[in-house]
Amino acid sequence: MNTVRVNASRTYEVKIGAGLLTEIGQETRAVTTGSVLVVTDETVAPLYLAKVYQSLKAAGLTVHTASVPAGERTKCVEYYVNLLSILAAKQLTRTDAAIALGGGVVGDLTGFAAATYLRGIPLIQIPTTLLAMVDSSVGGKTAIDLPAGKNLVGAFHQPSLVLCDPDALNTLPAATFRDGCAEVIKTAILFDPKLFAHLREHGTDFDREYVITRCVECKRDVVCADEFDRGERQKLNLGHTIGHAIEQCSHFTVSHGQAVAIGTAMMARAFYPNPEEIESVLRTFGLPTETSFSAEDLANAALSDKKRDGGTLTVVVPRAIGGCTLERISVTELQPILEAGMRHG
Amino acid sequence: MNTVRVNASRTYEVKIGAGLLTEIGQETRAVTTGSVLVVTDETVAPLYLAKVYQSLKAAGLTVHTASVPAGERTKCVEYYVNLLSILAAKQLTRTDAAIALGGGVVGDLTGFAAATYLRGIPLIQIPTTLLAMVDSSVGGKTAIDLPAGKNLVGAFHQPSLVLCDPDALNTLPAATFRDGCAEVIKTAILFDPKLFAHLREHGTDFDREYVITRCVECKRDVVCADEFDRGERQKLNLGHTIGHAIEQCSHFTVSHGQAVAIGTAMMARAFYPNPEEIESVLRTFGLPTETSFSAEDLANAALSDKKRDGGTLTVVVPRAIGGCTLERISVTELQPILEAGMRHG
Repeated sequence: MNTVRVNASRTYEVKIGAGLLTEIGQETRAVTTGSVLVVTDETVAPLYLAKVYQSLKAAGLTVHTASVPAGERTKCVEYYVNLLSILAAKQLTRTDAAIALGGGVVGDLTGFAAATYLRGIPLIQIPTTLLAMVDSSVGGKTAIDLPAGKNLVGAFHQPSLVLCDPDALNTLPAATFRDGCAEVIKTAILFDPKLFAHLREHGTDFDREYVITRCVECKRDVVCADEFDRGERQKLNLGHTIGHAIEQCSHFTVSHGQAVAIGTAMMARAFYPNPEEIESVLRTFGLPTETSFSAEDLANAALSDKKRDGGTLTVVVPRAIGGCTLERISVTELQPILEAGMRHG
Repeated sequence: MNTVRVNASRTYEVKIGAGLLTEIGQETRAVTTGSVLVVTDETVAPLYLAKVYQSLKAAGLTVHTASVPAGERTKCVEYYVNLLSILAAKQLTRTDAAIALGGGVVGDLTGFAAATYLRGIPLIQIPTTLLAMVDSSVGGKTAIDLPAGKNLVGAFHQPSLVLCDPDALNTLPAATFRDGCAEVIKTAILFDPKLFAHLREHGTDFDREYVITRCVECKRDVVCADEFDRGERQKLNLGHTIGHAIEQCSHFTVSHGQAVAIGTAMMARAFYPNPEEIESVLRTFGLPTETSFSAEDLANAALSDKKRDGGTLTVVVPRAIGGCTLERISVTELQPILEAGMRHG
């Protein structure tokens, strides 16, 4: 088992190890000995909820559970308010905890409820997807969507504990696993040539404990340097400005991971000296690198993105593996970049 | 004009001075030069919105406005979501600001929207009631209610600026003014014998700029010592455990200020050597000191309060003016205290 210590506004540990799912009860006692509300979704519940429930009960905790439908559509005001009502009905206090058992949607939704119920109660993240393990469960960003856009409402609320059990990835659908790989590849491009080489060499058979741990460490470093996303943390948005635009144009039929993969490939074609190096790794993982939406449509969608800031926006430019830069461009410069990213070879 | 500097997780100024309402545009430019959403209620809008709007426009800002019905019932999920939708529709960014123009309800509601829209945008508080000036606009607590209880959902979000114009109190209904006086008296009992003496001597003709400034300074000190309400800050709850129970039992027909006054008087009768000293000041301000609800009903209501924490709760015990203590009691000890507080003389 590996442990990554995060020293943000709250200090906490991310533990990565096969079999951790069966030790959740004991681990949770370090956070609370009272009541917990375990939130999961209807895909994860039949796979892992009984195991988690037993472990928590065996550790002497009072356990409540809530299951939401699977998918991004539950990351909305209605399910958020529903969770708040359950927390209130079960009379959880500030010394109790919410536990998010699932992927990024469950983590974001549960996290935002935990961030705001009684102005904040402890949160334990138990990510069951690769994407959630390497990205959304670490760093304290929580959010729900509005009809006007994704992640428009949320809070910074660091978890008290994160438990990643790579065995949970065995039950992950191939497409969902690939989605997570897009963020893993992104992390390697941003911060770690050695990790990039490992991914290029091993493809989807990468060493899970090593890769998850390295991704968590990289994210930890950037989060600790810029917890509230005013500068360096924006690097994590490599491929995301375009990715979000693709998701939006496709009415979210293109997954987040696929969209980020395409966005990363487009930024590589627009800026990286040897884009094929990045494209080929994405293809090795079965990820797409091109889109049929026009540069104009994508630019229009991107400019309604929340990361826009007055008349300018910040993009993450891949200059080298481990050498990406934040660059501020005017809104009029975006479409030419997208056009450059469209052209292939 | 007096200025109180608050060094919390964000550093900001509270300015107290007659006529400040007409200088809002210039003051706001220190926070943002972009767009603002001014949120007010239907009582305050006809009195001050035009003045505030003109001042902001004259300072070159892009001004949007939203008005909610007056009263606690707007501090709910529906109006919260409504404000979020307006912020999104007007495409405010993190460098823009929300402005709360009104009493505590408008401040709490607008504050929670500002705390969570894009995970937090700047907030300017322009309190127009005495209660909001001396209490809710300073310290960063924001909240909305759930059907299950008041203030069950919220966030800590320090404002970027607070502007108190005592002239705004001229339009305040007498009952609303008295409600604010209850918190002023509470502050004096907690922290400042000199302020208590000033209130006893001058009654409702107190020196507004002096009294508001002292209350803000006292609150500032306790907030800076315990921003996230884990210890000392709980002192501000003097009279509030009982007060909240009275509000709840009365279905909120007893106002917050009246309820806190009664709660403070009951705690004085239960613990203070000379309760008449406190009761007489409350009466001077036209505030009630007794309730017709039974100790049993109040205890039951209080124990569903969010300040309860496992099998115990913390109460603020007035031992001396400027010498109140936080004491942890078991839930079974509450009703006897309430009974002692009932007996008069």
